[in-house]
Amino acid sequence: MTTPPLAPSRVEEDALGTRLMPYDTAYGIQTARAVDNFSISGRTIADIEGFVPAILLIKQAAARANHQAGELETSIAEAIERAATEQLHGIKRGDFPVDIYHGGGGTAANMNINEVLANRASEILVGRKGSHPVHPNTHVNMAQSTNDVIPSAMKIAIGNELGSLRGGLAVLVEALLEKERAFGDVLKLARTCLQDALPITFGQQFSGYRAAFQRQAHDIAVLEKSCLSLPLGATAVGTGFASSAAYRRFVYEELRILTGKGYYPEENLFDGLQNADHWIQVSGSLKAIAITLSKLSSDLRLMSSGPRSGLAEITLPAVQPGSSIMPGKINPVMPEMMMQVAFRVIGNDATVTRAVEGELDLNVWESVILDALSESLRLMRRAIPLFVSGCVSGIEVNSKRGLSDASGSLALSTILAAIFGYPAASAVAKHAAQHDLPIGQAAVEYGLISKQDSGRLFADPSVFTNAERSERLIADFKAQLHEPLTRSIPHV
Amino acid sequence: MTTPPLAPSRVEEDALGTRLMPYDTAYGIQTARAVDNFSISGRTIADIEGFVPAILLIKQAAARANHQAGELETSIAEAIERAATEQLHGIKRGDFPVDIYHGGGGTAANMNINEVLANRASEILVGRKGSHPVHPNTHVNMAQSTNDVIPSAMKIAIGNELGSLRGGLAVLVEALLEKERAFGDVLKLARTCLQDALPITFGQQFSGYRAAFQRQAHDIAVLEKSCLSLPLGATAVGTGFASSAAYRRFVYEELRILTGKGYYPEENLFDGLQNADHWIQVSGSLKAIAITLSKLSSDLRLMSSGPRSGLAEITLPAVQPGSSIMPGKINPVMPEMMMQVAFRVIGNDATVTRAVEGELDLNVWESVILDALSESLRLMRRAIPLFVSGCVSGIEVNSKRGLSDASGSLALSTILAAIFGYPAASAVAKHAAQHDLPIGQAAVEYGLISKQDSGRLFADPSVFTNAERSERLIADFKAQLHEPLTRSIPHV
Amino acid sequence: MTTPPLAPSRVEEDALGTRLMPYDTAYGIQTARAVDNFSISGRTIADIEGFVPAILLIKQAAARANHQAGELETSIAEAIERAATEQLHGIKRGDFPVDIYHGGGGTAANMNINEVLANRASEILVGRKGSHPVHPNTHVNMAQSTNDVIPSAMKIAIGNELGSLRGGLAVLVEALLEKERAFGDVLKLARTCLQDALPITFGQQFSGYRAAFQRQAHDIAVLEKSCLSLPLGATAVGTGFASSAAYRRFVYEELRILTGKGYYPEENLFDGLQNADHWIQVSGSLKAIAITLSKLSSDLRLMSSGPRSGLAEITLPAVQPGSSIMPGKINPVMPEMMMQVAFRVIGNDATVTRAVEGELDLNVWESVILDALSESLRLMRRAIPLFVSGCVSGIEVNSKRGLSDASGSLALSTILAAIFGYPAASAVAKHAAQHDLPIGQAAVEYGLISKQDSGRLFADPSVFTNAERSERLIADFKAQLHEPLTRSIPHV
Amino acid sequence: MTTPPLAPSRVEEDALGTRLMPYDTAYGIQTARAVDNFSISGRTIADIEGFVPAILLIKQAAARANHQAGELETSIAEAIERAATEQLHGIKRGDFPVDIYHGGGGTAANMNINEVLANRASEILVGRKGSHPVHPNTHVNMAQSTNDVIPSAMKIAIGNELGSLRGGLAVLVEALLEKERAFGDVLKLARTCLQDALPITFGQQFSGYRAAFQRQAHDIAVLEKSCLSLPLGATAVGTGFASSAAYRRFVYEELRILTGKGYYPEENLFDGLQNADHWIQVSGSLKAIAITLSKLSSDLRLMSSGPRSGLAEITLPAVQPGSSIMPGKINPVMPEMMMQVAFRVIGNDATVTRAVEGELDLNVWESVILDALSESLRLMRRAIPLFVSGCVSGIEVNSKRGLSDASGSLALSTILAAIFGYPAASAVAKHAAQHDLPIGQAAVEYGLISKQDSGRLFADPSVFTNAERSERLIADFKAQLHEPLTRSIPHV
Repeated sequence: MTTPPLAPSRVEEDALGTRLMPYDTAYGIQTARAVDNFSISGRTIADIEGFVPAILLIKQAAARANHQAGELETSIAEAIERAATEQLHGIKRGDFPVDIYHGGGGTAANMNINEVLANRASEILVGRKGSHPVHPNTHVNMAQSTNDVIPSAMKIAIGNELGSLRGGLAVLVEALLEKERAFGDVLKLARTCLQDALPITFGQQFSGYRAAFQRQAHDIAVLEKSCLSLPLGATAVGTGFASSAAYRRFVYEELRILTGKGYYPEENLFDGLQNADHWIQVSGSLKAIAITLSKLSSDLRLMSSGPRSGLAEITLPAVQPGSSIMPGKINPVMPEMMMQVAFRVIGNDATVTRAVEGELDLNVWESVILDALSESLRLMRRAIPLFVSGCVSGIEVNSKRGLSDASGSLALSTILAAIFGYPAASAVAKHAAQHDLPIGQAAVEYGLISKQDSGRLFADPSVFTNAERSERLIADFKAQLHEPLTRSIPHV
Repeated sequence: MTTPPLAPSRVEEDALGTRLMPYDTAYGIQTARAVDNFSISGRTIADIEGFVPAILLIKQAAARANHQAGELETSIAEAIERAATEQLHGIKRGDFPVDIYHGGGGTAANMNINEVLANRASEILVGRKGSHPVHPNTHVNMAQSTNDVIPSAMKIAIGNELGSLRGGLAVLVEALLEKERAFGDVLKLARTCLQDALPITFGQQFSGYRAAFQRQAHDIAVLEKSCLSLPLGATAVGTGFASSAAYRRFVYEELRILTGKGYYPEENLFDGLQNADHWIQVSGSLKAIAITLSKLSSDLRLMSSGPRSGLAEITLPAVQPGSSIMPGKINPVMPEMMMQVAFRVIGNDATVTRAVEGELDLNVWESVILDALSESLRLMRRAIPLFVSGCVSGIEVNSKRGLSDASGSLALSTILAAIFGYPAASAVAKHAAQHDLPIGQAAVEYGLISKQDSGRLFADPSVFTNAERSERLIADFKAQLHEPLTRSIPHV
Repeated sequence: MTTPPLAPSRVEEDALGTRLMPYDTAYGIQTARAVDNFSISGRTIADIEGFVPAILLIKQAAARANHQAGELETSIAEAIERAATEQLHGIKRGDFPVDIYHGGGGTAANMNINEVLANRASEILVGRKGSHPVHPNTHVNMAQSTNDVIPSAMKIAIGNELGSLRGGLAVLVEALLEKERAFGDVLKLARTCLQDALPITFGQQFSGYRAAFQRQAHDIAVLEKSCLSLPLGATAVGTGFASSAAYRRFVYEELRILTGKGYYPEENLFDGLQNADHWIQVSGSLKAIAITLSKLSSDLRLMSSGPRSGLAEITLPAVQPGSSIMPGKINPVMPEMMMQVAFRVIGNDATVTRAVEGELDLNVWESVILDALSESLRLMRRAIPLFVSGCVSGIEVNSKRGLSDASGSLALSTILAAIFGYPAASAVAKHAAQHDLPIGQAAVEYGLISKQDSGRLFADPSVFTNAERSERLIADFKAQLHEPLTRSIPHV
Repeated sequence: MTTPPLAPSRVEEDALGTRLMPYDTAYGIQTARAVDNFSISGRTIADIEGFVPAILLIKQAAARANHQAGELETSIAEAIERAATEQLHGIKRGDFPVDIYHGGGGTAANMNINEVLANRASEILVGRKGSHPVHPNTHVNMAQSTNDVIPSAMKIAIGNELGSLRGGLAVLVEALLEKERAFGDVLKLARTCLQDALPITFGQQFSGYRAAFQRQAHDIAVLEKSCLSLPLGATAVGTGFASSAAYRRFVYEELRILTGKGYYPEENLFDGLQNADHWIQVSGSLKAIAITLSKLSSDLRLMSSGPRSGLAEITLPAVQPGSSIMPGKINPVMPEMMMQVAFRVIGNDATVTRAVEGELDLNVWESVILDALSESLRLMRRAIPLFVSGCVSGIEVNSKRGLSDASGSLALSTILAAIFGYPAASAVAKHAAQHDLPIGQAAVEYGLISKQDSGRLFADPSVFTNAERSERLIADFKAQLHEPLTRSIPHV
């Protein structure tokens, strides 16, 4: 009779006791405890774009730096680096099962990575997982604490995501620019307070959208830079205790080498650990973008309202039937999807706002801040290209409706105000409203101008969209005004 | 040479030291300190509708109750009551100068009232202001603490304000009901996703608005009742220490007598002091009302958009010229005022949300909660009547536009779907869209129905607004369908 | 030569065109379009607890009701019902791939279910998937629209989830009640404004927590009831057009039979479709619970602060090591997890607040409202039991610290104020503070009371936690006061 | 018979009709209508710091610019400028009675100023108020519209207020810097997750506070600059229609001359009118400051908790008695005031967030945005100096408590981890906890180090606050470690 093979398990121990774990598990006892404690959201730290990679990068840089500082043996440093590199080449999500909602300021996340790397590094060195010869705290976490690693990893991860969002905005800007050019001369009516105002071109209106996102992309670039300053090296409470001066210098050098990005230490490291208000700025910028996306989407819904009994000045691409009961209905579903993303981003800002209020020497609400920001970034980054391809790029304008709206507005009386003063123009506008006339005709009927002059002023409403042309027209017109005429202008 | 008259001042003393104060000042040293400490907002506790009166009422009831309990001499009790009554007959705002932003959970507010009453009661009894024979803490505040008085006063004050808001809502409901009746049969087009949908009557649409505010008025009535339960008698930490059982019984009796309202003690008084989440519910209900007001206002802006190039299906009263530059423009300023009030109420809810998170045995953020709720209530209470008189009551409908919109919708194909199935109706709707035809004509051209049948189905679009009439029409129509016809229906 | 096997695909058609789909796909062309349009969040409608089941239930009830109304053939009704039943016995998540973020007010979600049921019902009847003989719109969606189905399904799903949350609260209440009883007589110091106040028992403090959650569970029960009123039967715009009176009656009867719950139609169905403010109330109640959980968690962190240099009046169970760098540290990770859940719920309320602002005849932001509410419910429902088992149930109190804190407070002077008036007590408190004495000793040194009397008043601080006992003690004490003594009381 | 004196009234007319107004009223008919329409909040445009002055400045610059452009007669331009100058020398608040809540995107505010200036300028020129010879629209508002004036005035006003806030922050930074220096070497215990962590100095902790506000003051300076770009000159819809090129150049020149600030036109003026998301950034920065103030305040409350049974490591100045019932109690009222201000700022951000969502060619919610931002700025600007003088400047530290806390922490074991590895240190920490020992003694008892070595490591806990000193100590210590000793280290 043969002995059964040894059970494939290993005993792990931490300050609270021991635990038998399947041998093949990549992580260790503290991660296992965290899984027991926190499995609530179904989202783990591996679901946060770029977060585990950022911690792995830090561990790699730290191993190198501690080695250069003479604190870590070559073999151990190399094994840790190799273990980290393997994961960076393809994160095994199951190795990082800590729920994104976990207390302790990210200790479970940091220990999860420490344990995975220690296990793998030990395996590399002695062929067996475990905390010997590479220990998760003593070696992998050397000169680090959760309190400087996790905020640093957040800045690295979110900084990268901001870059991706900027890429998404560039696509949107390009699509809007194309429309701006295509519709550069197509007239429409501008509306203020949702009421008929002055003529504008679709191109001008779209240039406003385009410029806004360009402006915001610039803001994002500034924030990306602000994510380069890290609290790394300040360890648990900002004093840097338990790290060497050499480590604190080398770890940044190594991070820069590994990433090609100019990471550097924050100016005041106590501030760096105490305060998380930087994320208010980031979240605020995301919210500003989201609201501008929502405003654009809302405008598109409004301008495409109809098809028959709305403003109907543009048409959006039809991407799916609009109703389960009303045949023939098409809805602006892409803008509506975009707006709902915006509403979520607004909510995430409220979460960040609350979580940024920490206490004493460390803000420990980083997990939920990270989750909220990461979700906002991910949703916008994914939604924007679909919104562009499924909506913005396919916008068509109804030039006939645009011209007719632009020509009919009572606000064309503004040109009369510029020539004859506000009271005279106001009287004409009133006459036009009461008798349902175009302004030009009303001005003639009212006796303010001749029919011929009315033609000069109102025949081509596109003059209203060009300050230079309209200035010349008004100046020429005023120059020809005869005394008798001006005397008859009412001075209400 | 004559001696100058005695300086009209008095020396006041508290635990921190003494202070010379003008003799005539109604309040005392603690109030004076609070004025030094907190003058930041320009708004004092006297600016919060009903708050000082609510504290005065409690002081009155407490004096009576302590007297009945045998703890307070008759003369002192009567003097306190008289002093409170005088103020209740006309609050002297200058007597209550404590800024609404003050720390300490309202201690300064409570002491302000205690000092004013003690001074006046002493004056009544011995002809001189001061803390003898009536002391602000020993006598006026007897068996009370800031911690039970202030939350109780908040509930009394906000409860009363909720009643006033309910009155405002009743006025709005009445105005909407009038429109609902006046426009009961006037057709218009309903829009979903801002796209043309099915016919509806203005009356039906307005009934939705009306019903919402009626429903919310009912919610407010429930909240008013919830404001009747007070933590009075639990003093500083919920144990009731330093109050007598008799006082705790009599103070509610007296409050009920003084107000005619059924105040009663909260079920768990520790809960009563620890938690302020009740105000989340109140604030949430105010927010729900605000958003519904905003939605109504937003709809009115949309429906009145134009006058020429918008939906233009209703007209709002013109209450002021709309533009400093564009003669003839009229803006929906009343809905816009209402919406901005709503945005403020939304912000106040965020303030309340944050402030409701207190700690340990007392929530000490009552001042800012009170300020926020009180502002929301005041703004809505004042804005609604102006919104009603300056906008809602004067709404006129454009029945011609409504009928034309209702008749033209592609969604009238829904009736064909009910008879011939969705695919057939969808094909007709497509045909109608492509050839810019009314649905009835498209159905004929498409060969689905005869011209006569088209008339039966589409001549009177009001049938679409009445489920019973349309059910009969469809049933009759189906009953007459001949075999050959149904075979030609496309099964897309 | 043999015929090749039939291609495993099918052609689907909708108003926008045709599409070749793998034959085995459970859904149809509109769902496929929605997948193309909206894949952004990685969360589908099947990830929203109870949502797809709620729609399936409605489809089942509708099929029965339409059949009873004589509108739907028996075989088709039975096939639809069987198809729905199969899914209800085990939702195949892959069959419902529509992203939770989709525009159109839920049309894609409704059509997804319609298509899945039509395909399966057709398969049941004629052995082949497709829209014949059972069509997704004509038959499965008969007498329904997205606009009444989706809000109804939301109410059913959220109503059920509220019930589950109530269950979670009951577990928490039970655990708190146990602590309340276990610590009923253990003294501690209550703190207001974070400053030493009066003695209280741990049991009293915990009764406040317990009572709050009991109160909130009651609020949840009220909201559950409010989720029983549905807009079902009002179809696209509130008029009920395209549904029969019989259907509108039977569909509620069938829903009640299928669920055992008393669903009934909303009072005003235009209101039902126009307004979503009901969700503000639901979200507000969830927020109130979240904040109360956060407050409890925050208190537990504060009371367990230490272990040596904090309040250290309670000990929480150690569930994992607290630091990657500081050996021996244990953190309150369970409360911290709970607080982060609360921060998320607060954010979700902001999302709901924004999304509840719809326009005209339908609120089309239901998807994001549902997503936000559903997440709040799920997170709290899952977190509470872990919080209870990993923290609340294991709380231990430090009775020695509690007693010492309670005995040492300067606020014990309150009993002197009750006997000798506030000024005398204030003077004693000042003396105690200046000379770092217990109040009892300070009162003797100050000459207010004898050493023996000091013992009577202060030997057992538990008297401060019991209003009846303290009232008797004070009364007895006052009864024995001799004239000479009272004359020496300072009247500051 | 004598002629009666002239009636002291004047008739005013606008597009809606005529109105008899008291002759002396500074404003005109449109302002009077606005007062009727909007009196809800009790706060007028004159209550918004710097807003009316900013509009007056614009009017002044516009008059000069239009004159230089040859559009406005010298006498009229001069009269307008003189009228504006008079008000700028002392705003007569009663002249500007428009409620801050008014619709129309600020038309009433713009017209209020236009009317006041026209009346006064006419009076200057012809001795009589009225719109002749200077008309509010034709002359005062020449080349302007509400849509470019109001957003420009907002930027000017808020920009100035940001400067004032920056001044307030400088005062706070100075006070914190003083404490940082005064307490530079005073030890205390840092806490993470509210649990005992490593030693730190009060100076280090305060440097974190100080650095945060310095950083934020820098952010504010950036925002001030962003407030220099204005949409002035784009008039009603961004096209600049009705303004001359010369005006658009001169108006900025004049503004720069009048203010000494470098105002310039926004890059894309359509964007400038369409979007208000810039205010999200401003509001976000105010919120970040508010939360950092709240965090500081919250920390001060926590650190000063006690006086006997809390952390009691600092003492705040006593500024008023703390309780109406508990003699001797002192509360941290100044931090509590500051926190409530922060909660209000958080709420104002929610208001701004909602209001920034405008539509089409103009955001018309500027009034409520302005009101919210202005309140946040005003409250912080006024509260900070009181907070500094009444609290921060008077903070005293309890060095004895600080030293004792710092010396007693279990986290001092971190130095053992740095020398002997984490497992050994963890074992010592466990031993220390179980036997209630200082770490140094536990390490000796546990057999890890000698008594003498324990003295070297733990006698002076200040070494933990200095990374350089501790690095040297650890290196020296490690250098002396003998082989036998290290072999006995447990490798848990």
